[in-house]
Amino acid sequence: MANITKKVSWSSRGDESGGGERTPLLNGSEEVRYTRQVGLAFFPGSPRLYEQYRWCKSVCVCVCVFQSLDYDNSENQLFLEEERRMSFLGFKCLEISRWVICGLIGFLTGLIACCIDIAVENLAGVKYYVVKQNIEKFTEVGGLSISLILWAVLNSAFVMLGAVIVAFFEPGAAGSGIPQIKCYLNGVKIPRVVRLKTLVVKVCGVICSVAGGLAVGKEGPMIHSGAVVAAGVSQGRSTSLKKDFKIFEYFRRDTEKRDFVSAGAAAGVSAAFGAPVGGVLFSLEEGASFWNQMLTWRIFFASMISTFTLNFFLSIYNNKPGDLSSPGLINFGRFESDSVAYNLYEIPLFIVMGAAGGLLGALFNILNYWLTIFRIRYVHRPCLQVMEAMLVAAVTATVSFAMIYFSNDCQPLGPDQSEDYPLQLFCADGEYNSMATAFFNTPERSVRSLFHNPPGRLFYNPLTLSLFTLFGILLAAITPNGSVSVRGLYGPHYGGGIVRMTLSLTVIMVEATGNVTYGLPIMLVLLTAKIVGDYFVEGLYDIHIKLQSVPFLHLEAPATSHWLTAREVMGAPVTCFNRIEKVGTIVDVLSNTSTNHNASLSSCRSPLLGKICGLILRSQLIVLLKHKVRELARSRLTQRKLQLKDFRDAYPRFPPIQSIHVSQDERECMMDLTEFMNPTPYTVPQETSLPRVFKLFRALGLRHLVVVDSENRVVGLVTRKDLARYHLGKHGLEEMQLAQT
Amino acid sequence: MANITKKVSWSSRGDESGGGERTPLLNGSEEVRYTRQVGLAFFPGSPRLYEQYRWCKSVCVCVCVFQSLDYDNSENQLFLEEERRMSFLGFKCLEISRWVICGLIGFLTGLIACCIDIAVENLAGVKYYVVKQNIEKFTEVGGLSISLILWAVLNSAFVMLGAVIVAFFEPGAAGSGIPQIKCYLNGVKIPRVVRLKTLVVKVCGVICSVAGGLAVGKEGPMIHSGAVVAAGVSQGRSTSLKKDFKIFEYFRRDTEKRDFVSAGAAAGVSAAFGAPVGGVLFSLEEGASFWNQMLTWRIFFASMISTFTLNFFLSIYNNKPGDLSSPGLINFGRFESDSVAYNLYEIPLFIVMGAAGGLLGALFNILNYWLTIFRIRYVHRPCLQVMEAMLVAAVTATVSFAMIYFSNDCQPLGPDQSEDYPLQLFCADGEYNSMATAFFNTPERSVRSLFHNPPGRLFYNPLTLSLFTLFGILLAAITPNGSVSVRGLYGPHYGGGIVRMTLSLTVIMVEATGNVTYGLPIMLVLLTAKIVGDYFVEGLYDIHIKLQSVPFLHLEAPATSHWLTAREVMGAPVTCFNRIEKVGTIVDVLSNTSTNHNASLSSCRSPLLGKICGLILRSQLIVLLKHKVRELARSRLTQRKLQLKDFRDAYPRFPPIQSIHVSQDERECMMDLTEFMNPTPYTVPQETSLPRVFKLFRALGLRHLVVVDSENRVVGLVTRKDLARYHLGKHGLEEMQLAQT
Repeated sequence: MANITKKVSWSSRGDESGGGERTPLLNGSEEVRYTRQVGLAFFPGSPRLYEQYRWCKSVCVCVCVFQSLDYDNSENQLFLEEERRMSFLGFKCLEISRWVICGLIGFLTGLIACCIDIAVENLAGVKYYVVKQNIEKFTEVGGLSISLILWAVLNSAFVMLGAVIVAFFEPGAAGSGIPQIKCYLNGVKIPRVVRLKTLVVKVCGVICSVAGGLAVGKEGPMIHSGAVVAAGVSQGRSTSLKKDFKIFEYFRRDTEKRDFVSAGAAAGVSAAFGAPVGGVLFSLEEGASFWNQMLTWRIFFASMISTFTLNFFLSIYNNKPGDLSSPGLINFGRFESDSVAYNLYEIPLFIVMGAAGGLLGALFNILNYWLTIFRIRYVHRPCLQVMEAMLVAAVTATVSFAMIYFSNDCQPLGPDQSEDYPLQLFCADGEYNSMATAFFNTPERSVRSLFHNPPGRLFYNPLTLSLFTLFGILLAAITPNGSVSVRGLYGPHYGGGIVRMTLSLTVIMVEATGNVTYGLPIMLVLLTAKIVGDYFVEGLYDIHIKLQSVPFLHLEAPATSHWLTAREVMGAPVTCFNRIEKVGTIVDVLSNTSTNHNASLSSCRSPLLGKICGLILRSQLIVLLKHKVRELARSRLTQRKLQLKDFRDAYPRFPPIQSIHVSQDERECMMDLTEFMNPTPYTVPQETSLPRVFKLFRALGLRHLVVVDSENRVVGLVTRKDLARYHLGKHGLEEMQLAQT
Repeated sequence: MANITKKVSWSSRGDESGGGERTPLLNGSEEVRYTRQVGLAFFPGSPRLYEQYRWCKSVCVCVCVFQSLDYDNSENQLFLEEERRMSFLGFKCLEISRWVICGLIGFLTGLIACCIDIAVENLAGVKYYVVKQNIEKFTEVGGLSISLILWAVLNSAFVMLGAVIVAFFEPGAAGSGIPQIKCYLNGVKIPRVVRLKTLVVKVCGVICSVAGGLAVGKEGPMIHSGAVVAAGVSQGRSTSLKKDFKIFEYFRRDTEKRDFVSAGAAAGVSAAFGAPVGGVLFSLEEGASFWNQMLTWRIFFASMISTFTLNFFLSIYNNKPGDLSSPGLINFGRFESDSVAYNLYEIPLFIVMGAAGGLLGALFNILNYWLTIFRIRYVHRPCLQVMEAMLVAAVTATVSFAMIYFSNDCQPLGPDQSEDYPLQLFCADGEYNSMATAFFNTPERSVRSLFHNPPGRLFYNPLTLSLFTLFGILLAAITPNGSVSVRGLYGPHYGGGIVRMTLSLTVIMVEATGNVTYGLPIMLVLLTAKIVGDYFVEGLYDIHIKLQSVPFLHLEAPATSHWLTAREVMGAPVTCFNRIEKVGTIVDVLSNTSTNHNASLSSCRSPLLGKICGLILRSQLIVLLKHKVRELARSRLTQRKLQLKDFRDAYPRFPPIQSIHVSQDERECMMDLTEFMNPTPYTVPQETSLPRVFKLFRALGLRHLVVVDSENRVVGLVTRKDLARYHLGKHGLEEMQLAQT
């Protein structure tokens, strides 16, 4: 038996080892071992199965091994047997379960949104009340600097609380969460992103940050929260709480989990903006290639339940039970409907607005890009991060205070007292400082009052408005993980210039403003902003994803990549297992990985002598080893047959190979992988062009694609990283450096 | 040389032969020939290419042949060479061309919508004016039956005109067009569906039908028109007009054309309802699996341009240039915005409404189903069809007249005279018959007045409303190719129960009513209607698609189909060509097809001895033969090399094989297929489960999938028809009979 064992590409930082790693890294530990075996392989199972492998009997057997998150079902014998056993009624029940889970996801997401809203309102209310009392006390007697200090200290205190929780307990909860969920839906496994602890820390963090006056928005955290809720509820257990409800076990795999996470993200958007259709579109724009009509309806259902729940509980909280008029956290209020909302001559104006927004957005993104790089380099210790956040909170308070102080834009106090915290300051009696409405308020309220002052009275003067916008943008830009949509929604053109999600953002805006009349202008503005912005720099989320070297797959291969073939991009040579392999060999291959590093030997051509007959995941091998299946090989009858349930129980946190101890005796046993490998992995010939490989990979949500020669012998393996490193730069195809350990 | 030639599955009715065939048939003429060849194949081209086929040199060569519409690029050498030659700037130019084309599509679709609208308004205006004069004349003196006859004759005359044009000139233009476009986007090629003649006939037909009072809607024809415009504009030529503008030649293939057709369909929806986002969603829901973000934006752009164009020209027509307040053909007018639009206790009410709508919709669909079957059996001659349409038009007029005549629901004539054709009949002076508003009007106007009577005066009484709805539904049900959305929009619940496009219909409704406040109730109602309706019967379009035995692929394989494998569903054995084949053999195989019929020998296992090395389309072979490439084999240097352009010029109407005459000398020549075949077709092992095959097929938009054994030898071929015939019935998996000739 000739053994040719070579490690190919390996990333030592996997899910198992990643304790508190903040850098999202592809967990792409591909590793394959190749062996030649002459003679008849062992065929357990039914005669049918025997026939199935008839072709392989006189040829070599090859099984690829790696551990990776996968959106393609591993259709091994166990799986197929289960599916074939299941009755029509069983599938109906599963379908109903999916709807129930989506309902639950929507309900819980709405509830979380409600909690965040109430907590922020109350905390910010207390803060503004205290500061207002203080300002009023000192306006007459002088010494407003004490008020400023009080405000800054209060802000910093809130922010410190939030920052400490995030930085020390769960750094993964930092940031808006949208890039992480984007990556998850794209198929990149980012450690700890959908855990319960992350959710709790995130919710606390966002409450403290918003109450502390930071320019962060709730939409990112809501999307993230929805995703975590979905990942938890759909699995019917919590690994953190060590509680298994023994339900929804069928859904314990990446394929199903991803669908529910899409629904959760949509429910989050829906709760944040009161925009259920916008939520569905957000999920679609991000998880585009995996779309499916039944799934869309379930996502839609989750979104609806989410906004209904929020609406319902807020109506109770506001003592108007049953009044469903606040569907989202971020409400711009209803806009007046007008039959002739705009005219033809305004269209060039919209385009100019869009272009300006695109430019501003690009500027924001560039500023944010440099600041993020600065942060990655110099502000990586938790203490520093907390201090930075506190500093920004203090600066926010100072800037706001200065703006209010130096403003002399006084407005008469309306009879309806629509201001929450009107500051008189140096205005005449019966008047209030209008700049205070903008800065002495939670972001949503200030935006709402910006749009909705009663039409009768002259609102902010243009200078107030410009300064408010300018400083709002600057504050958002310097805020760590600053939000773009809340403050960004000062003008849709500006938000559109930053995030570039035209379609879903349009629908979100239309749904959030409650008036479709402005739909067309909004679209026009957003589209222009996107086109102009794209000319200069990528969208904000894409920048963040690229900064973290995530192997994110875009929707299509770069246009000029037809000259590349699978042979050139694949990792090779690959090492494989026999269909019936010695336990020792498997353990050695699995444990040796951390000493190896990535290597792409695309031109190597080692003697390859066997045909592919299946694909088995690293995680599956570990479960196999753990359950000592090696004993089965010796005395099949006395041992319990390994079930799909055993794999599901271990999902998604498979034990590291180091935790499995194998004695010298056991090393000599043989393990039959036939039942557990996927006998029909997708393969491509080595001369396939890159766009073709990319299309297959992306459309099916694969994580690994076997490259074979004309004899069906394995010659290489294409992984996400191999595809993601090519991108279109200003001057054509460029090869990017991706995160490698 | 041992030849094993067997025809497998063949459909004699293809695009070429289908002169005026009305039954949409899969043009799935698969045919494969298989030959063993020993020795070194001939390797033209670069050394690189030689290496590429190194593996094949000592093995047999196999090329599959069939002719079929394909959403997967045939990445042959010519194609790859062109792509590799193209510069970065070239791709940028292509991208800009795509945007320009989408803009043009939107513009032309908007223009067509505008023409239809103006024509219908004027024709119907003349009709109602004449009838009104007549009625007023005869109300006093008695003899209203003359008015009835006049009305019926006028209706029938209009309808006859439309029906004659459709039935005798282009039967493909009959029907709403939505099922056809659904099929096209799904990947089924329906003959003559996107031709210029179809467009002209369709537009004339819809104008006559609507003016003639038939319960047909404009949304279907608009979607169809948009698709035809897209298919025409994107190709830069018209085959019907024999005019080639020599532009956009790159887009002359199914992959690109399909993208533009999606944009056209979206532009059609957008123009019909003034709902650009709804249009995009419609395209997405129908062409779901081929989605792509850049494409979505282009579709969005086309939709926007379309509604803008319509709006702009209508504003000029209405002498209010620049007033962009009529974005769609089907306008419900703006609804008043209300801050508390609905309350919690109304939610059960919405659900009940939805359930009722689902039931009604299901009833409508069942009725329509039986009527359609009746029509297919007994009303298949053009004359009969014209007569049927005229009869329905006369019945419509009679029913409407009777409703008006027996109604005694008089309403005072408002001071603003909002009625277009108020009929006094037996009402007191200064009053008018309110039933006449509903029936003596174009459908859009009656629906609009239904929703928008000035709030002050008591509108229709409930009996009028119920009768109007009931007869509206009945009339729509009996109308050949009756519309569902216009009349169906009497209540969204009812429309939802019929067509079941929840998400896009919601957005369309929200955009068409111009108020997002009702968004949530609409969603709830539509979702309930869909769920209830699905329990009883499929959606209307699906029923029509199934009635015509179209091999329509749904989004997922039936749940209980895991026990089926590729081996069981594929067509086998397959016949193949050598890489270098005798011209005579090719011609024989291509011409013999019509004498063969479909045969699915799934259990046959003939001796297969060669490996797959490429895939060539029947259409490509025909072009090859036509250009006498066989001569190239003899003296390569003296002959012009066949270009991709030659294939594009022939697209999409390839000549039939019978038109190519091959002399006995020529039959003996050899033809090298290497450059023209796709060397990397997608393949699956024969033990792959049906859902896995389905997923690959659907996600990549394939039309044929090669099934290979472990030695990479061709054992079968999976086509659309093989997959579409399985569907989930009430009691599990069922095998359907699909159209076979």
